[in-house]
Amino acid sequence: MTEIKLTSEITVEEIQAVGDDAMIAHAAMVSTRGAMDGEAVPPEKAAGLIRYLMANRHGTPFEHGCLTVRVHAPIKVWREWHRHRVGWSYNEESGRYKQLDPVFYIPPRERPTIRPDGFKSARPAFDVATDDEYQQVLMHLEAGYRAAYLHYQAMLEMQVDRGLARDVLGVGIYSACYCTANPRSIMHFLELRTNRPDAKRPSKPLFEIEVAAGNLEAIFARRWPVTHAAWNECGRAAP
Amino acid sequence: MTEIKLTSEITVEEIQAVGDDAMIAHAAMVSTRGAMDGEAVPPEKAAGLIRYLMANRHGTPFEHGCLTVRVHAPIKVWREWHRHRVGWSYNEESGRYKQLDPVFYIPPRERPTIRPDGFKSARPAFDVATDDEYQQVLMHLEAGYRAAYLHYQAMLEMQVDRGLARDVLGVGIYSACYCTANPRSIMHFLELRTNRPDAKRPSKPLFEIEVAAGNLEAIFARRWPVTHAAWNECGRAAP
Amino acid sequence: MTEIKLTSEITVEEIQAVGDDAMIAHAAMVSTRGAMDGEAVPPEKAAGLIRYLMANRHGTPFEHGCLTVRVHAPIKVWREWHRHRVGWSYNEESGRYKQLDPVFYIPPRERPTIRPDGFKSARPAFDVATDDEYQQVLMHLEAGYRAAYLHYQAMLEMQVDRGLARDVLGVGIYSACYCTANPRSIMHFLELRTNRPDAKRPSKPLFEIEVAAGNLEAIFARRWPVTHAAWNECGRAAP
Amino acid sequence: MTEIKLTSEITVEEIQAVGDDAMIAHAAMVSTRGAMDGEAVPPEKAAGLIRYLMANRHGTPFEHGCLTVRVHAPIKVWREWHRHRVGWSYNEESGRYKQLDPVFYIPPRERPTIRPDGFKSARPAFDVATDDEYQQVLMHLEAGYRAAYLHYQAMLEMQVDRGLARDVLGVGIYSACYCTANPRSIMHFLELRTNRPDAKRPSKPLFEIEVAAGNLEAIFARRWPVTHAAWNECGRAAP
Repeated sequence: MTEIKLTSEITVEEIQAVGDDAMIAHAAMVSTRGAMDGEAVPPEKAAGLIRYLMANRHGTPFEHGCLTVRVHAPIKVWREWHRHRVGWSYNEESGRYKQLDPVFYIPPRERPTIRPDGFKSARPAFDVATDDEYQQVLMHLEAGYRAAYLHYQAMLEMQVDRGLARDVLGVGIYSACYCTANPRSIMHFLELRTNRPDAKRPSKPLFEIEVAAGNLEAIFARRWPVTHAAWNECGRAAP
Repeated sequence: MTEIKLTSEITVEEIQAVGDDAMIAHAAMVSTRGAMDGEAVPPEKAAGLIRYLMANRHGTPFEHGCLTVRVHAPIKVWREWHRHRVGWSYNEESGRYKQLDPVFYIPPRERPTIRPDGFKSARPAFDVATDDEYQQVLMHLEAGYRAAYLHYQAMLEMQVDRGLARDVLGVGIYSACYCTANPRSIMHFLELRTNRPDAKRPSKPLFEIEVAAGNLEAIFARRWPVTHAAWNECGRAAP
Repeated sequence: MTEIKLTSEITVEEIQAVGDDAMIAHAAMVSTRGAMDGEAVPPEKAAGLIRYLMANRHGTPFEHGCLTVRVHAPIKVWREWHRHRVGWSYNEESGRYKQLDPVFYIPPRERPTIRPDGFKSARPAFDVATDDEYQQVLMHLEAGYRAAYLHYQAMLEMQVDRGLARDVLGVGIYSACYCTANPRSIMHFLELRTNRPDAKRPSKPLFEIEVAAGNLEAIFARRWPVTHAAWNECGRAAP
Repeated sequence: MTEIKLTSEITVEEIQAVGDDAMIAHAAMVSTRGAMDGEAVPPEKAAGLIRYLMANRHGTPFEHGCLTVRVHAPIKVWREWHRHRVGWSYNEESGRYKQLDPVFYIPPRERPTIRPDGFKSARPAFDVATDDEYQQVLMHLEAGYRAAYLHYQAMLEMQVDRGLARDVLGVGIYSACYCTANPRSIMHFLELRTNRPDAKRPSKPLFEIEVAAGNLEAIFARRWPVTHAAWNECGRAAP
C-alpha cells in the first residue's frame, strides 16, 4: 500500500524571466521618443518614470517582460489561481494523463483556522486552533485523504479511466503547474491574493494562496525591484 | 448524519442571451457599409455572409452577442472549463463562503470507463465497464465521497474554516457556476470539448465535459442556428 | 468634385444589450447560494450587494451581460479605443473594402486647444482658442483634409488599391465601428477616458475620446443605474 | 521648412526574448511528469512532442516565453496590428505627447497596386503598376503628405494641442511601437497576416502588414526553429 505524504509547503520556483525595470522604462519612453529611442534610460530617470507610470495607471509598459514559475500547490489553490485569465498562461499536471501522486496538504500549526463567535463571511478572520483542535483537523484531513487515495488506487488497478477514478481525490491533493505572466498581471494577482495593512484596497485571500503569493512576490521583487517598490508606494494597487 | 446524493446529471440552463445571426451579419457589414448601415440585412444574404465569414476565419463579427448559462457540474469539469480564458466570464459557488452540498458525480452506466489492453494516453479510448466493474466503481466512488463528507461535516462542527475543511472533498463534488460567453468563444470551447467524426480537427475530451458541451451546444444551436450550421459545415473549426 | 463634410459630432448609439443590475446581483449570489439560487434577489438587497462588490473589487459579477453600440468617430479616437483589449469586441469600417466617406473632424468652438505657457505633457491642460485662433485651426484642418481627399479620389480613379490610396487621409477622418463590451470593461474604459473631479484616480484623456466616453456613459447609466451609481460612489474606480 | 522623408522600409528589431523550443516541451511535459519534471527533455523528444502538440492543437505550452520587438511602420499597419488583443502588449509613440516625425510610407516599386478588371474585394488581387502609374501614385502620396505636414507644423507653431493638430496627418505616417507577444500569439498573427500557398487556411493580408509579418517571422523562426517548422508542417495553422 502506498504511503501518502502530508505537507504544508507550497513552493514557487523561478524557471525563466526576461525584462527588468530598465525595459519597462524603455518601452514607456517610446511614447515621447518614438523611433529615436536607441539610448539607454539612466537608472534614476527610469525609477522616476516607473513611479510616475504606476501612480498614473499607465499599465501597458509593465507588460513587456515575463516570468515563468513552477508551482507545487494543492488543487484548491489552482481553483483560485486559474481564475486569473489576463496575461497568465498555465500548463498543469493532468489527472487524465498521469496517476496523481499521494501528496496532500495539511495546514501549518500557525494557520488561523477556527471561526470565532461573530464570524462574518464577508470579512473572514479566524483564530489559531488549540493543540487539540489542530490534532483533530489533521486527523480528519489525513483520514479523508487516505481513504480517498485507497479507493483511487483500487480503481486504477481495475484499469478505470484515471479521469474518473480521481473524482474521489480531495482538492487538498497537490498538483504542479507552470505559470507565465507579465509584471502587470503579477501585480494584479498579488494585489488580490495578499492581505497587507499598507494596501490601499484590502483583500481577504485564502491562507494557502497567500502563501503562494508571498513566494511569488519574493521572486518578483528580486527581478523588478524598482517596480515592486513603486507598486508598494502606491498602496499595492496594480496599474 | 447528512445523506449524500449521487448523480450523473450535468445541467446547462439558459439564463439570458442577446445577439442573433442577423446581428452577426449586421456587425460584419460595417466593413463595407460604414456609417450607412441602418438597413437590415435580408436573411438569405445574412446566411451567405455568415458562411463566408466562418470559412475565411473572420472571427470578430461572432463576438457581438453573449449567452449566460447556469451550469451544475462536478469540480473536475470546472477545472477544465475555467481554463478557457478569452471571452468567458465566470461566477462560481464558493467553498469558502458556503457549506458545499453533498452532491457527487457517478458515471452513467454507458460511460466508457475501462482502459483496454494497448491503451494510449495520447488517444484515450475506453471500454464500457461490465456490470460487475460498474458496481465496483460506484462502490469506490460512493465510499470515498461519503467518508470525505463525514470528515468535512465533523470539521465544520468544530468551526473549522470551510476553506480548509473542504480539502478532503473529492473533485467529483458538484459546484454551480454562471458562465457568460460570446458565440466565437462558445465555438472555440465546443471545438475542443466535443469529439465528432465530422470535425476537421478531432479532440478527445473528458467524457463529463463533453456532456456539458453537448448541453451547451443545444442552446447555442437554438439561438444562433445559421452560425451553428455554418460552423458545422466548416468542420466545427472555430473562426 | 466631392464635397467634404466637417463635423464635431461623435455619436454612440445603443444597438443591443442584455443583463441588468439584478443579473449582476444574481450572478454574484451563486457564491453563497450555489445551485439553490432560483429565487430573485429583492431590489434593495441587490443594490447593497452591488455596492459591496464594487467597494471590494469583486469584479467578475459585472461581466455577465453586454452592450453593443455603433460609434461614429474620427480614426484618432479608434487608435486609442482599440487599445482596450479585454472584454471588448470590435468590427470597424474597412479602408481596404470600401471607399471612405469624406467626413472629417473639426473641434467644437469650446474645445480647449491652445497650449498655455508652462504647459506640461504629463498633465496636459489647454486654453480655449481665441476666435482668430479657432478660425485658423479650422482653415488648416479643412485645407489639409480637402487636399488629401482630392489625392485619394484621384488615386481611386486610377484604380489604385484603396488600402494604399487611403494612406494620405488624415486621422481626423471618420470611421464607423460596432463595439461590444461587458459592464466591467465599460467601467474600465470610462475610468481612463473621462476626467472628473470626483474620480479617485484622475485621468487626462484626449478631448475627443472623452466626448465618446460621455455618450457611452449615458447609455451605460440608463441600463445599469445601480451599478453606475455604486461605481461613482467608489470614486469611479472600476472593480 | 522641414523636409519630409519618404520610405518603403518597415522594420522589426528584436529587443529581448525568453523561452525556446526546449522550454515549450518542458512546460508541456508537466502534464505527464508532474512535480518530478526536473530532468531536461532530450532534443529529439522535444521536437516530436512539439509536432504532436501543434498537430493536436494543444496551444498552451506555446505561451511560456515571450518576444519583444520594436517596429517602425505606418499608422495603417498599427490599425490592423493592434486588433490582435490576446497575448499581445503594445507601447506606441504618442501623437499627443510628441511631435510626429515627417516620415511617410510610399510603396516599393514591386507592390501590387492596381485593381484589375473583375477585381473582387473578398479576394483582393492587384497588378503591379506601370512606370507611369507608379510615378503618379508617388506624386499623389507625396503631395498629400507634404501639404498635411505643413498644416500640422503651422498649427504646432500656434501652440495648438498636438492631439488635435495631428488630425490632418495621413495614416501613411510612421509610428514606432514596442510589441511583446508569446509564441502562440505570434503564430496566430502570422497565420492571418501572411499569404502563403502552403497555408491550410489562406489569408489575403494588406501588403504592408505582410512585410512586417515577414520580418517578424524571421525573428520567430530563429528563436523557435522547431516550433516554426512544426507550424509550417501543420499548414501554418496556429494551435
